[in-house]
Amino acid sequence: MKIIEGAVTAPQGFLAAGVTAQIKNKSKKDLAIIFSERVCNAAGVFTTNVVKAHCIGINQEHLADKKAQAIVVNSGNANACNGEQGLEDTINMASLTADLLDLKTSDVLVASTGVIGVNLPMGKVNQGIKEAVKVLSLEGSSDAAQAILTTDLVTKEIAVEVNIAGKAVRVGAIAKGSGMIDPNMATMLAFITTDANISQDCLAQILQDSVEVSYNMISVDGDTSTNDMALVLANGLADNELISQVGTDDYRILQEAFVFVNTYLAKMIAKDGEGATRLIEVIVKNADRQKEARKIALSIVSSSLTKTAIYGQDANWGRILAAAGYAGVEFNPALVDIYLGQVMVAQNGSGLEFDEIKAKGELQKDQVIITVDLKLGREKASAWGCDLTPAYIDINASYRT
Amino acid sequence: MKIIEGAVTAPQGFLAAGVTAQIKNKSKKDLAIIFSERVCNAAGVFTTNVVKAHCIGINQEHLADKKAQAIVVNSGNANACNGEQGLEDTINMASLTADLLDLKTSDVLVASTGVIGVNLPMGKVNQGIKEAVKVLSLEGSSDAAQAILTTDLVTKEIAVEVNIAGKAVRVGAIAKGSGMIDPNMATMLAFITTDANISQDCLAQILQDSVEVSYNMISVDGDTSTNDMALVLANGLADNELISQVGTDDYRILQEAFVFVNTYLAKMIAKDGEGATRLIEVIVKNADRQKEARKIALSIVSSSLTKTAIYGQDANWGRILAAAGYAGVEFNPALVDIYLGQVMVAQNGSGLEFDEIKAKGELQKDQVIITVDLKLGREKASAWGCDLTPAYIDINASYRT
Repeated sequence: MKIIEGAVTAPQGFLAAGVTAQIKNKSKKDLAIIFSERVCNAAGVFTTNVVKAHCIGINQEHLADKKAQAIVVNSGNANACNGEQGLEDTINMASLTADLLDLKTSDVLVASTGVIGVNLPMGKVNQGIKEAVKVLSLEGSSDAAQAILTTDLVTKEIAVEVNIAGKAVRVGAIAKGSGMIDPNMATMLAFITTDANISQDCLAQILQDSVEVSYNMISVDGDTSTNDMALVLANGLADNELISQVGTDDYRILQEAFVFVNTYLAKMIAKDGEGATRLIEVIVKNADRQKEARKIALSIVSSSLTKTAIYGQDANWGRILAAAGYAGVEFNPALVDIYLGQVMVAQNGSGLEFDEIKAKGELQKDQVIITVDLKLGREKASAWGCDLTPAYIDINASYRT
Repeated sequence: MKIIEGAVTAPQGFLAAGVTAQIKNKSKKDLAIIFSERVCNAAGVFTTNVVKAHCIGINQEHLADKKAQAIVVNSGNANACNGEQGLEDTINMASLTADLLDLKTSDVLVASTGVIGVNLPMGKVNQGIKEAVKVLSLEGSSDAAQAILTTDLVTKEIAVEVNIAGKAVRVGAIAKGSGMIDPNMATMLAFITTDANISQDCLAQILQDSVEVSYNMISVDGDTSTNDMALVLANGLADNELISQVGTDDYRILQEAFVFVNTYLAKMIAKDGEGATRLIEVIVKNADRQKEARKIALSIVSSSLTKTAIYGQDANWGRILAAAGYAGVEFNPALVDIYLGQVMVAQNGSGLEFDEIKAKGELQKDQVIITVDLKLGREKASAWGCDLTPAYIDINASYRT
């Protein structure tokens, strides 16, 4: 597997664009389109929030035939919780994009992100869609990656190439965070393209499985959004032999590429969490079951007290053990070892005399690694998050203004 | 029911003390004893965290006979996650207190709160216990209330008197928060005394039921502690006819007193949450089931984004609806009305044009009331929390230093 340039336009046959439609009332890009020259097998994973933005329902309808060819995205307005008008606007975004690209409306997927409960300025949105269609290009991925951001500080893009039985197959993706991020999917936006030739069933499975270990293992603030989704388009242009069975060698190679791409972006989202100064990785090892390891890792990475201690570079490992303890998983605290980076700070559930300077050093790194060894079994999981800082408060205390 | 002075010493036959044992390395009180002249029926509710401080297990043992006569508490050190030494120290706290008061060790309950994973300075603790026993008095409740605090800014004390079939019966309590506060009990310390004559079964039931609607309905930061508990001692000195059956008039009067006392203290804990500038009350009404109303109320009051918006006095009701949506309860978002204080900000799941100045006014009050009307059934629940502020970060970034 090698990392390549181009993100969502790295796979063959994909174009992208990102433009300034002034939905944000700032001179920032806020409308993106991703387009495949050929109709794609498509799949999505959607928010588990009971309160869903209109685009979630529309996408589920449009994916009923398991096909799609374009994705249109706006940032600056979530188009959620705003009644019939919002629903109509979502449909209009899809149908205008479809008209201009000469597609069926049901082959266009829609995503929105931003403030909840306000109607979209459809004049601006329509103008933006027209402009974006005009500038769709092979070089448009970075513009698209910018146009989907809200409070994110950096764009999140990646592409890889793998060799599947002699054919080069590419997987590219862009994503955005960066508040309202919590596991159970649908905590952010991710758009993945691939030129792999793969059945829709296998594609949906690979998407779901790779989401489980990537986007579903990050937490910024425990708030699951109403709008979030991961969408994938596969146009088959790589011309590899059709992948139509789960678990074959070809399937596994593509799956690895998806896990890599989605984990890479998930970590970028966690690191770019609102107000974050550093990425936190929690590794829970030697659990009885993977599911239990995941739950504990997420509980720790979501703990406000742990996140704040890491912001303060305070090796307060008791909070880590306490957060493991309320994860809803049975384990024996008297067996647990805890490491901050390379420094063991607790052994068999009790504190050690450790070198505070060294421990502080581990907490000053850009990426803080917390390892919790349960010493029960052989399963392992990682979760990612960020520290909780005064800047998170600043950003979120006046988000609407 | 009338509110009276004296907190835990308001009921007849109770004495209390709070002294400075220098466990905190500050000239603040940090050791408390509550003592009944007569052996009491006793009950407790304990943390659900898998990682439990030694005092939790010891109290469960000491309550096996359903009797107790004294409670000894230290703040400044949680005496948790520190192996055999910690266990021994807990037992020694109980046995020294028992010796000095001429009680059985099993009639003494123990509580600790503070930093995790550090051994107690037992020389200081023992000295503190000796001093506290010497100064036990009818006027000692406020000192005790002070001695159990950690980062709390204010003491939390209350007592009420009710009339049960012609007899005056008193219920008093002290409590502490103020970080690591999350539902599922055991999120703080509360010590309740009463002179009611009541069977231990009924007492345990009243404690459990009143904890459900009070301490289990508050959240400061979502972190459930390893040490927390609510303990009650009932010495029977009010001489009312024995309450030995659930649901009788006498039972209900006492239950109301418990609910009042515990809700009062729970709200004080929420309001005094680390760094908080205001109390948030979330009322969920017209739910199908009470349990569902509770879950939604807690989800909203625990949402970092909602808490931060309230700190910023930003009427961002979309976050409220989103937090309701991820509570794990099914409801119809298209029916939901939301009010900030008296101002309706969303109706039938959609935003309204509301008066921003009036809404801001509601968010500037000391107590911000959020009402969510599900329009499904008749059940109702309240939860309490506080805003999330830069001061929370300050306090927790360097808690150990």
